[in-house]
Amino acid sequence: MKAVQYREIGKAPEVVTVPDPEAGPGQVVLEVAAAGVCHSDIAVMEWPAEVYGYGFPLTLGHEGVGKVAALGQGVTGLEVGEMVAVYGPQGCGSCAKCAEGKENYCLRAAELGINPPGLGAPGAMAEYMLIDNARHLVPLGDLDPVSAAPLTDAGLTPYHAIKKSLPKLVPGSTAVVIGTGGLGHMAIQILRATTAARVIALDVSKEKLELAAAVGAHETVLSDADATKAVRELTGGLGAEVVLDFVGVGPTVATAAGVVAVEGDLTVVGIGGGTVPVGFGTIPFDVSVSTPYWGSRGELIEVLDLARSGALTVHTETFGIDEAPLAYERLHAGQVRGRAVVLPRG
Amino acid sequence: MKAVQYREIGKAPEVVTVPDPEAGPGQVVLEVAAAGVCHSDIAVMEWPAEVYGYGFPLTLGHEGVGKVAALGQGVTGLEVGEMVAVYGPQGCGSCAKCAEGKENYCLRAAELGINPPGLGAPGAMAEYMLIDNARHLVPLGDLDPVSAAPLTDAGLTPYHAIKKSLPKLVPGSTAVVIGTGGLGHMAIQILRATTAARVIALDVSKEKLELAAAVGAHETVLSDADATKAVRELTGGLGAEVVLDFVGVGPTVATAAGVVAVEGDLTVVGIGGGTVPVGFGTIPFDVSVSTPYWGSRGELIEVLDLARSGALTVHTETFGIDEAPLAYERLHAGQVRGRAVVLPRG
Amino acid sequence: MKAVQYREIGKAPEVVTVPDPEAGPGQVVLEVAAAGVCHSDIAVMEWPAEVYGYGFPLTLGHEGVGKVAALGQGVTGLEVGEMVAVYGPQGCGSCAKCAEGKENYCLRAAELGINPPGLGAPGAMAEYMLIDNARHLVPLGDLDPVSAAPLTDAGLTPYHAIKKSLPKLVPGSTAVVIGTGGLGHMAIQILRATTAARVIALDVSKEKLELAAAVGAHETVLSDADATKAVRELTGGLGAEVVLDFVGVGPTVATAAGVVAVEGDLTVVGIGGGTVPVGFGTIPFDVSVSTPYWGSRGELIEVLDLARSGALTVHTETFGIDEAPLAYERLHAGQVRGRAVVLPRG
Amino acid sequence: MKAVQYREIGKAPEVVTVPDPEAGPGQVVLEVAAAGVCHSDIAVMEWPAEVYGYGFPLTLGHEGVGKVAALGQGVTGLEVGEMVAVYGPQGCGSCAKCAEGKENYCLRAAELGINPPGLGAPGAMAEYMLIDNARHLVPLGDLDPVSAAPLTDAGLTPYHAIKKSLPKLVPGSTAVVIGTGGLGHMAIQILRATTAARVIALDVSKEKLELAAAVGAHETVLSDADATKAVRELTGGLGAEVVLDFVGVGPTVATAAGVVAVEGDLTVVGIGGGTVPVGFGTIPFDVSVSTPYWGSRGELIEVLDLARSGALTVHTETFGIDEAPLAYERLHAGQVRGRAVVLPRG
Repeated sequence: MKAVQYREIGKAPEVVTVPDPEAGPGQVVLEVAAAGVCHSDIAVMEWPAEVYGYGFPLTLGHEGVGKVAALGQGVTGLEVGEMVAVYGPQGCGSCAKCAEGKENYCLRAAELGINPPGLGAPGAMAEYMLIDNARHLVPLGDLDPVSAAPLTDAGLTPYHAIKKSLPKLVPGSTAVVIGTGGLGHMAIQILRATTAARVIALDVSKEKLELAAAVGAHETVLSDADATKAVRELTGGLGAEVVLDFVGVGPTVATAAGVVAVEGDLTVVGIGGGTVPVGFGTIPFDVSVSTPYWGSRGELIEVLDLARSGALTVHTETFGIDEAPLAYERLHAGQVRGRAVVLPRG
Repeated sequence: MKAVQYREIGKAPEVVTVPDPEAGPGQVVLEVAAAGVCHSDIAVMEWPAEVYGYGFPLTLGHEGVGKVAALGQGVTGLEVGEMVAVYGPQGCGSCAKCAEGKENYCLRAAELGINPPGLGAPGAMAEYMLIDNARHLVPLGDLDPVSAAPLTDAGLTPYHAIKKSLPKLVPGSTAVVIGTGGLGHMAIQILRATTAARVIALDVSKEKLELAAAVGAHETVLSDADATKAVRELTGGLGAEVVLDFVGVGPTVATAAGVVAVEGDLTVVGIGGGTVPVGFGTIPFDVSVSTPYWGSRGELIEVLDLARSGALTVHTETFGIDEAPLAYERLHAGQVRGRAVVLPRG
Repeated sequence: MKAVQYREIGKAPEVVTVPDPEAGPGQVVLEVAAAGVCHSDIAVMEWPAEVYGYGFPLTLGHEGVGKVAALGQGVTGLEVGEMVAVYGPQGCGSCAKCAEGKENYCLRAAELGINPPGLGAPGAMAEYMLIDNARHLVPLGDLDPVSAAPLTDAGLTPYHAIKKSLPKLVPGSTAVVIGTGGLGHMAIQILRATTAARVIALDVSKEKLELAAAVGAHETVLSDADATKAVRELTGGLGAEVVLDFVGVGPTVATAAGVVAVEGDLTVVGIGGGTVPVGFGTIPFDVSVSTPYWGSRGELIEVLDLARSGALTVHTETFGIDEAPLAYERLHAGQVRGRAVVLPRG
Repeated sequence: MKAVQYREIGKAPEVVTVPDPEAGPGQVVLEVAAAGVCHSDIAVMEWPAEVYGYGFPLTLGHEGVGKVAALGQGVTGLEVGEMVAVYGPQGCGSCAKCAEGKENYCLRAAELGINPPGLGAPGAMAEYMLIDNARHLVPLGDLDPVSAAPLTDAGLTPYHAIKKSLPKLVPGSTAVVIGTGGLGHMAIQILRATTAARVIALDVSKEKLELAAAVGAHETVLSDADATKAVRELTGGLGAEVVLDFVGVGPTVATAAGVVAVEGDLTVVGIGGGTVPVGFGTIPFDVSVSTPYWGSRGELIEVLDLARSGALTVHTETFGIDEAPLAYERLHAGQVRGRAVVLPRG
């Protein structure tokens, strides 16, 4: 089959031919319908040799949906031909975190050498994909595979970040979304669908803020030196109960810390390297500052259900498998509008 | 001033002239702008002498909004002329429940003889109303007083019932609302605004179900002997995560018990006398069955904020104070569409 | 190998010789160290033919611990020789409930024909036991296998019932435990170890109440017609925030409903057939009445950790596998003190 | 009456004679039985003029218990002669935070000029104390007033910090307490009484660690450069679910960040000026880092209930009112063992 692989430090990904995977005991083979192209793949491919630890070659793609093509021995509850989404942040399945479906925080993954597909294990950017355990597959139902693929990360990650803040997002509260690209764009829609909170979106251009307003932000604010003051004014001086920073660079986390309200949540999702200093007097009392990672199995089920209800619009641009290297190039150049999705058999 | 009073067992309420109230230390006098007319007032006026314990005369009205007319000594944080809503289920303010704002469950109200306005204490159906403590007043801001009055009970009661169930109302879940009148009608709107759950409304006529659909119900089902089967089918056989029964008679609680899912909430708000038998095998595992009462101070703030965001449409029919007895007559006869509201100075 | 089987409606269990199980793909074979003897087995063996649906022969035992004897293909994260406890209420592993480890409430178990070991599937009362999936095994560490076996049901069931009530068991609160036998006895210890609540134990004899006091009950009350009054007095008239009924017959659920406080939890664990009628006026406001079943995977990990900390003392009486029928006889006759445990290789 | 006042920047507190307070409408006068001497008073008295904003003279004492001496007009639910504790972090009583009893986070306190007794308003270190509102008084029952006074801050503050972390303190979890003085010492006892978590205490001397072990710490670790490694080892490499830092200087917050587990809570209570940088890669995923302040009214009720159950031992050293300046001197010099308490009438 064809697969899109990262094969050498610093080199662009290539389309190569590799053997088709086979389903061993307990495993499942998917015929991949769609695989998302993500910024974090580019980050991985920019790591120097001493940081990169996934081995070569690495078949890319940590966002995948596909059709069940073959079931290994002992697999029950799935049928060949069924469309499914892949839960990416796979864990051991047995530790205290995995026992609650929080495989993204598996206590034994490092020890057991377990990696997500596309981030260590062979990913979704291939004609077929091997799944180690049926529990990592969520039925897609009638969801469109192209739109659904990005939901497994670009949808699940903001959903997870928002879900823990729901008790604070009561009517009358405010949520600030900093960065309205792939994840922030989903976050605005998730907030609107699951809460009555007011949503204020921040980004660096008018064009992006127009898109933010179009997908549901009540207010938009340019993310510049005056942003903190503007958000404070919009919230009667009290600040926002929840602030989600999908950029995570120094200036955005500073804004985030400046606009969060007492007892609020400040969640840094973006991996831009900025940090929020938390101590007496540096931030309002009882603000919870945290950095989450991806989401749980239960949350993936919920985000797909949310999409099924029609609440989420995912803008995508599709590429054939041979065009996957081009998709990465264009993503890197900032030329992709919405989410790039590779259709390995399209 | 004029006041609408219940003065004798079994007699219709009367409009009488009584002395204007004065604000003692810590108290506040409101000029009432609007007072809701509620079915439970009628229930109270139908109680026989041996049940009725509120004393005579009783100035009616447990839903009230008004303008601050006078502040007693020591009252701070309020200004004369400010528009406010009255929190009805008042408690002692100091016990463990009141310390969390759950005055509706005050541990000492009975011992200390504390009653809600209109349900023991003088109510809102008068030109002026005496408030014992400033903490029972919530600023109305720019909310329309006529629409806001019913929110203090007909809005707060379903909001409270729904709020405790929010963790179960994840995307993909279903909420069933039985009875789409005053409270159920608000419940549908609250559910739509604060969750991504699917809402199924049940009532006994097509006309009522049309209204339910108009305010947001995704599905409507006639509340008859086939209703259980219909809801089960709509939920793939699994039932609904949350069932709210605003009628509470034998047949509706039986339907409620028949459609609730494992680990769901079955909340009986209606006081129709029906009961759900809970024991091994009578209801799915870990369903929480309960009967709530009104709501907390914090919840009243939230429901007013929700209305301010534009999420709640309250249908009202207004009456002058001299027409208040007529309003009760028409409510009793089922001739009021939406909520009847008395404007004591209108 | 030897196995204890229920082989015909109404007949006593028998020790028979059956083939040793083999580990297929993804499966695990345990050499059973200890298997608990439970009242519910007796209940099952008393069901008439038209109720009993588990098929014949049925190897008994839904509480089991053992040593990993063989690993099927594809099993990782376990080692041969490791001591483990078996999670009994097994589900599909993939549905929304299973994705959070709540396999006891699996949405697809009935559809897929999945049953717990000893309650449909071959159980722990045999020399070897086949486990369908490694996720159902929790490492025992240095816990004594004989004491640990009953924890998988007689420990897990009360732990699950208590865990959901923990937010209500603040300092100053009261928990009432009705029935201080196998499960109630564990409940008292779990409550003492995990909360600062006062524990009041109810049972029908002085001897049982002495045992309840010995394992930590602060107060003991004879479970008779005066019990409601006694508990009300002990709680200053307010009642108990949490009431756990491990008997569940008519008189005990009536006591439970009579002593529970406003906003409390009334949890009927016992399967004695009593029901609590819940509706307006029949129970304090916002009491949550429910009937739970067993517990989640995460909770089993926690209850074993709790035992490992030394907080739980399990009284057991041991029997060899050939004496298993005698153990059931004696349990039925009320002659077992503590929990009967069969040691298949002892 | 005599009062202990801070009267000039940088000057030691003095005992002066001031007029007795009188109870205006809604107010209460207490005859003070005991007032705690707190490190934060010393911090306040070290502030330079440009930071200090409480005005002069300032009657000290933010931890107080006393006997109700006089009730202002309109006060109900209290009786003259009753012993009560004072809730210190008083707010407006009406905003969204106060409506839930979280007056420590009042949204309007600054705007309305509301300050806690002893920290702006006249405090407890006097023969009589004026209380603005009866809701700030919690009945003491039979609690010893000397031991109870420190509970209103040195007990309430760690109780609040711990309470929000209770869902993470399941059996098998670990809580780390850094700094075992006044507050840390209470924290250890609160953790032991309300959870089954293992408690690891860190402090800088063997003597302090012995006290920590005596009040319930399971493990003690010297708080030095090797502390992080030691705690990691004690937790099997996984770290602690909850870390409470009662010191809050640079080295302790660094230790805290080094020992906290994924999805844990890191709570900086100490005001030593250290900060934890939170961003991608600086701390385990989904750790919630926060700095709390004092506690809510409901939590004060609970901490007093906890003391009443016998779970809290408060070491105190008592001083007469004329010795109050000496008490501050000795506290400053590190010569007070346990909590210094002034008995204004002792």
